[in-house]
Amino acid sequence: MDYHNPQWQSSMRIRLDINNTLRTVVGAHGIDPADIHAMAAAAGAALADIEANRAHLGWPDLPAQDISAILAAAQKVMHVENFVVLGIGGSALGNIAVQSALNHPFYNDQPRGTRTHPRLYVIDNSDPDLNAALIETLDPASTVYNVISKSGTTAETMSSFLAVREHLIKTLGPNALKEHVIVTTDPSSGFMRQIGLREGLPMLELPPNVGGRFSVLTTVGLLSAAVTGVDIRALLAGAAYGYQIASNPDVMKNPAALAAIVNLLCAKQGQNMVVMMPYSHHLRHISDWFAQLWAESLGKKTSLSGETVNVGTTPIRALGATDQHSQVQLYVEGPFDKLVNFIAVDTFAHSVTIPSAYSDLEGVAYLGGHTFNELINAEQQATAIALNDAGRPNMTHTLPAINAFTIGQLFMLLEMQTAIAGALLNINTFDQPGVEAGKIATYALLGREGFGERRAAIAAARARRSAQWEV
Amino acid sequence: MDYHNPQWQSSMRIRLDINNTLRTVVGAHGIDPADIHAMAAAAGAALADIEANRAHLGWPDLPAQDISAILAAAQKVMHVENFVVLGIGGSALGNIAVQSALNHPFYNDQPRGTRTHPRLYVIDNSDPDLNAALIETLDPASTVYNVISKSGTTAETMSSFLAVREHLIKTLGPNALKEHVIVTTDPSSGFMRQIGLREGLPMLELPPNVGGRFSVLTTVGLLSAAVTGVDIRALLAGAAYGYQIASNPDVMKNPAALAAIVNLLCAKQGQNMVVMMPYSHHLRHISDWFAQLWAESLGKKTSLSGETVNVGTTPIRALGATDQHSQVQLYVEGPFDKLVNFIAVDTFAHSVTIPSAYSDLEGVAYLGGHTFNELINAEQQATAIALNDAGRPNMTHTLPAINAFTIGQLFMLLEMQTAIAGALLNINTFDQPGVEAGKIATYALLGREGFGERRAAIAAARARRSAQWEV
Repeated sequence: MDYHNPQWQSSMRIRLDINNTLRTVVGAHGIDPADIHAMAAAAGAALADIEANRAHLGWPDLPAQDISAILAAAQKVMHVENFVVLGIGGSALGNIAVQSALNHPFYNDQPRGTRTHPRLYVIDNSDPDLNAALIETLDPASTVYNVISKSGTTAETMSSFLAVREHLIKTLGPNALKEHVIVTTDPSSGFMRQIGLREGLPMLELPPNVGGRFSVLTTVGLLSAAVTGVDIRALLAGAAYGYQIASNPDVMKNPAALAAIVNLLCAKQGQNMVVMMPYSHHLRHISDWFAQLWAESLGKKTSLSGETVNVGTTPIRALGATDQHSQVQLYVEGPFDKLVNFIAVDTFAHSVTIPSAYSDLEGVAYLGGHTFNELINAEQQATAIALNDAGRPNMTHTLPAINAFTIGQLFMLLEMQTAIAGALLNINTFDQPGVEAGKIATYALLGREGFGERRAAIAAARARRSAQWEV
Repeated sequence: MDYHNPQWQSSMRIRLDINNTLRTVVGAHGIDPADIHAMAAAAGAALADIEANRAHLGWPDLPAQDISAILAAAQKVMHVENFVVLGIGGSALGNIAVQSALNHPFYNDQPRGTRTHPRLYVIDNSDPDLNAALIETLDPASTVYNVISKSGTTAETMSSFLAVREHLIKTLGPNALKEHVIVTTDPSSGFMRQIGLREGLPMLELPPNVGGRFSVLTTVGLLSAAVTGVDIRALLAGAAYGYQIASNPDVMKNPAALAAIVNLLCAKQGQNMVVMMPYSHHLRHISDWFAQLWAESLGKKTSLSGETVNVGTTPIRALGATDQHSQVQLYVEGPFDKLVNFIAVDTFAHSVTIPSAYSDLEGVAYLGGHTFNELINAEQQATAIALNDAGRPNMTHTLPAINAFTIGQLFMLLEMQTAIAGALLNINTFDQPGVEAGKIATYALLGREGFGERRAAIAAARARRSAQWEV
């Protein structure tokens, strides 16, 4: 993969086709090209603003970061059997997306030898059965744990860390922490940093200005990627190329800006969902990563000018061809409330021919001689045609191939699309004030100091509930 | 598990709490109890209709089926290393849901010995890389493949079957098919049945009247469950108990009917999404199974009286506590367009205490001494409180525990809820006319005989696309 060669790069350029969002194709529920042109100036201003604030935002400059500390840390753990990420949200979804996009579909199941790198586990829930499995099943002697929390106050991650810490000390002795835990946290503040310093743990720095959902290309996502054998230089080269495309000031040639505009125009006419539907098993968790990016960035109550706006379309995680047998009936016949965003792949890693057999059974025989590649791509195109015929707007990103360069590029394209959409909505794309209330209620319910009043208010509200509505 | 004892059964009854959907709790975007009462008679009629048509529908009677053939087939394959389901949609989602609900979180990774049953793989996509892994990675000599297709025309499943068939013949000889393939199909017709007869393959029968999305408790879901060690008798006993609860003619005491009514009232006031959010790692794929059931059953263009209605709310697959760090910001602050359906668990299989440490770091120390169980349940309640405070309707199903009995019960409750909702919407809950157009376009694109005209029409539509909108 000659990812610095400009010609190779442009052969790996991700394309966006928005023809099927237009009224000329899908009718009344499509969008008017004049409206796209009308938003171009505002999108151009948003792009200029992102470019001017690159250093402040942080994530656009990640492709140029120094990764030597990450590579050195990865090298040290290559020999272990299990590499476990303790993280949630932005400290898990990117890791899972990279791993499933670029490694073998049955990666963890493969025996060591066939699999040349450690198994990867991502523990991203406070579920007791999952945490019991973490402690009881994985042999700590051959496991390294990467605890990821910027602040050290993430309840799920810190609880799993406390369980792992005790387990390591009990089974391997107090010195085991240094050998078996890597901390990824803020370079100067927070509880996790204090713990790391106190225990003498190896620490990787998380850029303080990059929020969780934009952190896949920081130490958060890159360490587990490198440990499982992903070429993280290529991932970053792809992201740099993605930024180049997505910062093009000519909005009409910029896929991130056009995608943001199409999404907002669809939202304006009542299509309050965007279905992210890659046609590739490897890309299934890209949808989960995108869902956080889009939902948490754009789902906002208040605009930058202080008005109550309650905006944000809901990302729907789908997978082709699988969801044709689950969700597509609704997409084709239900309310006109969705924009569908396909991700197609030109060339898969494998070309697999469907063998010919049963020539007298026509309903089966027609498959023989085609490849799975032809089949899945025909299915993607067929679903787009079915949506067109039913008057449902849809657009398609096409990856020339699935590799570290195109995955890095895709991350950056979608991050730019989200940042442009947030600017056009006039909201703060980078905060998440709506999760505070839930955190405070959790503290109150767990009896944390200083939350007694909230605890009493919750109890009072509970008492007002009616048994009639509990069956 | 004494699942025939009525007292034990009622201790395992799934509860539904709809208090937080009411206006008295969540304000203007909640529902009016008077409207619930107003729909009760129609829901009662729907229940009577389902009861009268039990035999025709098929799925309500599945708990009473004879499972001896399934148990015998499972017994024969217990010794193999890999059990592979080739199926898609309703022939995959239930299998995955049961497996992840009831088996170890790292089931496939565990060494044989610790894991007393075969690994389970579900191949539910026409992706070439996934199918290459299926052929190249799994040793056919220690693998049994269960191909599930009622008609034998499902392109994804049949393609995978053709690839497996050739692989078995090439590596193990022509007699290997009989030993390594089990067919689950229609008892009297279809290509898959013809193939099974021709090749002399063992066959399990699929009840012809039960559609894919209602088939988890047929041979489709029960064989892989039994092979991985799930107590399928308990699953069916739970389903029988679920039907008992969900067929209660007293609608105000019937959780399936109340849930259907609440969903429809929310839909009427513009809440066009229902978020299915279990707070349990084991239950994460229940959401995927439910998404097909709800979307494909209720997403319909035409009513039974022939009007164009384009109905159906969109199921959103979420997971607690994980998605608090991804989706909840949008649920709390975005548009008022969702009903959230939590699934909580009273007692998990494991009780795991969070160890105490760092007593001087208050933001971490407060966790010590609590259990993960307390934490995840506090988080579920806290999210409900945050939604209440933000005026967002939400309801909660609570499972006393996760076991085969409660999972079977949950399947039946949600199937009944869906069937009642479909009846109240006056649509055909059991067909899927909207997927035909995509199938026909796939046939056309692959050059299947008899679809030449459609192929030409697609090519003509393509030619009209504008390069301007492809960047």
